[in-house]
Amino acid sequence: MTAANHTELTPLSFMERASVVFAAKEAVVYGDRRTTYAELAAEATRTARGLRDAGVGAGDRVAYLMPNLPEMLVAHFAVPLAGAVLVAINTRLSGPEIEYILDHSGSRVLVVDTELYPTVAPHLDAAGGLAEVFTVDDLGTGTPAGTSALADAVATARADPLPWTVTDERAPISINYTSGTTGRPKGVVYTHRGAYLNALGELIHSRHTPGSVYLWTLPMFHCNGWCTTWAITGIGARHVCLRAVDPGEIWRLIREEGVSHLNAAPTVLISMANAPEAGPFPRELIATTAGAPPSPTIIEEMEALGARIVHVYGLTETYGPHTVCEVQDDWEGVEGAQRARLLARQGVSYIIADPTRVVDEAMDDVPRDAATMGEVVMRGNNVMAAYFQDPDATAAAFRGGFFHSGDLGVQHPDNYIQLRDRAKDIIISGGENISTIEVEQAVMSHPAVLEAAVVAVPHDTWGERPKAFVVLKDGASTGEAEIIEHVKATIARFKAPDTVAIVDALPKTSTGKVQKYVLRDREWTGHDARIH
Amino acid sequence: MTAANHTELTPLSFMERASVVFAAKEAVVYGDRRTTYAELAAEATRTARGLRDAGVGAGDRVAYLMPNLPEMLVAHFAVPLAGAVLVAINTRLSGPEIEYILDHSGSRVLVVDTELYPTVAPHLDAAGGLAEVFTVDDLGTGTPAGTSALADAVATARADPLPWTVTDERAPISINYTSGTTGRPKGVVYTHRGAYLNALGELIHSRHTPGSVYLWTLPMFHCNGWCTTWAITGIGARHVCLRAVDPGEIWRLIREEGVSHLNAAPTVLISMANAPEAGPFPRELIATTAGAPPSPTIIEEMEALGARIVHVYGLTETYGPHTVCEVQDDWEGVEGAQRARLLARQGVSYIIADPTRVVDEAMDDVPRDAATMGEVVMRGNNVMAAYFQDPDATAAAFRGGFFHSGDLGVQHPDNYIQLRDRAKDIIISGGENISTIEVEQAVMSHPAVLEAAVVAVPHDTWGERPKAFVVLKDGASTGEAEIIEHVKATIARFKAPDTVAIVDALPKTSTGKVQKYVLRDREWTGHDARIH
Repeated sequence: MTAANHTELTPLSFMERASVVFAAKEAVVYGDRRTTYAELAAEATRTARGLRDAGVGAGDRVAYLMPNLPEMLVAHFAVPLAGAVLVAINTRLSGPEIEYILDHSGSRVLVVDTELYPTVAPHLDAAGGLAEVFTVDDLGTGTPAGTSALADAVATARADPLPWTVTDERAPISINYTSGTTGRPKGVVYTHRGAYLNALGELIHSRHTPGSVYLWTLPMFHCNGWCTTWAITGIGARHVCLRAVDPGEIWRLIREEGVSHLNAAPTVLISMANAPEAGPFPRELIATTAGAPPSPTIIEEMEALGARIVHVYGLTETYGPHTVCEVQDDWEGVEGAQRARLLARQGVSYIIADPTRVVDEAMDDVPRDAATMGEVVMRGNNVMAAYFQDPDATAAAFRGGFFHSGDLGVQHPDNYIQLRDRAKDIIISGGENISTIEVEQAVMSHPAVLEAAVVAVPHDTWGERPKAFVVLKDGASTGEAEIIEHVKATIARFKAPDTVAIVDALPKTSTGKVQKYVLRDREWTGHDARIH
Repeated sequence: MTAANHTELTPLSFMERASVVFAAKEAVVYGDRRTTYAELAAEATRTARGLRDAGVGAGDRVAYLMPNLPEMLVAHFAVPLAGAVLVAINTRLSGPEIEYILDHSGSRVLVVDTELYPTVAPHLDAAGGLAEVFTVDDLGTGTPAGTSALADAVATARADPLPWTVTDERAPISINYTSGTTGRPKGVVYTHRGAYLNALGELIHSRHTPGSVYLWTLPMFHCNGWCTTWAITGIGARHVCLRAVDPGEIWRLIREEGVSHLNAAPTVLISMANAPEAGPFPRELIATTAGAPPSPTIIEEMEALGARIVHVYGLTETYGPHTVCEVQDDWEGVEGAQRARLLARQGVSYIIADPTRVVDEAMDDVPRDAATMGEVVMRGNNVMAAYFQDPDATAAAFRGGFFHSGDLGVQHPDNYIQLRDRAKDIIISGGENISTIEVEQAVMSHPAVLEAAVVAVPHDTWGERPKAFVVLKDGASTGEAEIIEHVKATIARFKAPDTVAIVDALPKTSTGKVQKYVLRDREWTGHDARIH
């Protein structure tokens, strides 16, 4: 509905605005490609028309499988402009996983990077609803047989405008499939209203201005880049696209393009700070980080280079970030590890979200004592509409009128929440809860340690005990006993790992999250199934 | 409606958030009074309950007549928290004008500053719906007879929480009366949704952070302080209240409280820059300005002191600012008068508004040639719901699906709009609108006056002031001073003309309409073209 005084909320309006206000401004940088906002809006329009020419109708799903290319950014406007729903698929998934998502979402069209095409090609016949496959030939290897070049469809499509409006702000704009660590991935449905409001929240909490230069380290397929695809466009800032996360390339772009903002998991920040190219940032870099609590060590290292860390927390089901660790005035005098400890907390709700709670099983708030654990539950316009075609899972997630995150945390006396663990990661040792996050941070405070992951391993007496997997810094050396002693000197002794494995690398998701379940599953092979 | 994934938008949520996130932070500074957000939320709750105790029910109007006191800020949350609608009245209006607003709005309760009480006291009986008058004794002169102290009602009210939620985001939150350019003032109805979204727009375009210290130079009764009452609270920044705009006091607060932001008409900036206390700002000051285009001189002066000027434009009907003069990257090398000319344009729509248009009488866009004049029309969620109880005026304002501003402007090739003139001959004096028709009627109410025309004439301090051209009745005699005194006794004193010219006749069209532009053009010869 549109009247003089009512416009349904949609991030499509952000592209319309940018094309009017910043028509001649460089909107997207990718290698030698430089695109203005007028050109970007025109490309989104022609792409939308190309999709319609391929039979995409209102409410149809359109799947994209590609890295952070300009075409992927365009998709965030073109697909909803065509009246359709974007399904951005994690590029690291296996063929069968992608097949499941294509089939479950009923996607009518797939747009795929040519490098990723071989992964998905054997599975296309099984994806029932698929009528057309377009490829994007970023690497110049040619258009695979049986596919059409998206560029051709866009070039031949009509260019006359489509309205940057929607008739119902609560209609779906995208479906983002969870990583499905427990069972099948679930399709998280975002609405135009939710995406619009969450995008405004990103602008406010990451302090974007039209002068922002945003580096795409975070995958756009991850919560639509935390809605930053839409947000950066709305404020008319600049997108710097990135095919793959490589510390050397990140540092080059920071210096050559004047990058001011990026979103990244702490592991990406660790690789940046420890890269040979590391040095002071040429302008303040606002690094908005989530996926795991940033360790005091990485916060100190990044700040020393001139970064401002914005620590946020959320899930796919909350359009990405839902809480932010707001920095209080009276933290100003607090330095070093104590300050980093304050900043490592997940914090408080975004301005556009309802207050976040930590509740017991009766849905009562836990005491604000920084000790009593409960489940983190959320509410607000940036909570998903539903799990796509899964009313049972939706109802379960929304029981009691809140979204249940499955994360365990505490609430501090200042109302800040702090995660203690995923429900499935927590270690129960002799009846005591041990937070793997707390142990990991103690391990990482050892100067030789680059990264660490702690998981529960079976133990005859205690049920479970912590085990640490550790990656050392280049050239550093230490041993199991020294690390264990270091942890015992840092936190309660019973929380120290019994064993430490020095490894070359940790298993990670495409967004840089450590896959603790991979480590854990190995340890539990041959034992009874873990019951939590 | 509230579900896990849907919350009706309301700025009430901003106070809930601040009371959780910034509970112990200093929220409001006013003289020796220092209030935390926890205290502010508690005061809003008790005020809401006090209003309910006084009989205020859902949808009732509650009028406030006071300067920028903490109580006025509290009203922006307390009144909607009580389920009621805030009517914030211009403190410069005359008794009969206030009476009209009280009566037309059907206000049930009036809360008035004791200093302003004598102005309104003789008119209270005529305001039919008024059941209770509370006073706020900021100056310590005592509670006038026949009124109750608001402080007593608040102190004795219950403190248990009320929900910071609404059941319908499109319900009214406030009514702001226009200055009545053509006849009677009209009541502009704001909704919770519009206020919420406009507040987010203010945060984004004025670049607020939780560290902002906002000085209340802009009256809160003016478009609810451009929704900044709500916005500053939402982001958890600090309000610095101010009873009267005085350059010395402004400079003292800038230095002692570390002010980072203020909103003000260019005339206020002129008085600041020319005050004896002027000097470099201790931290960057973002001065968001509207009401008239800032002159090159004041932009240069303020920037030299360390300010950043954000030039915005809007009307009461658009919740305050609707457009912003976004600074483009390629203006960076542009200096001096040329840069100021770019910045003096009204610009482009806020991120939360639909694109602003300049149209001809057929509602077609005028050419983007910086020359062809048309009417500025707006659309979006920050356009008023309606004129209160005036469907005819509402329909007229919304003809063609856009809000008609009555302002004439041009559109530049870069899509920026610039105002050229007011269709309604409005005078903008020190940021306040003065209706020429209203002044003419006051002049003509003098028994010796036959005809009168009032136009804007240039003024160094106020931008514009009214000048009256008067034709006397045959045989009647009076002088300039007597006419001015007569007007001051009739309407608000600041609306009285500074000069009165007694003339033999007024220039008129063949159909007998007075040609005010002829009079105005004479007065502006030798001055810069009138550009509002």
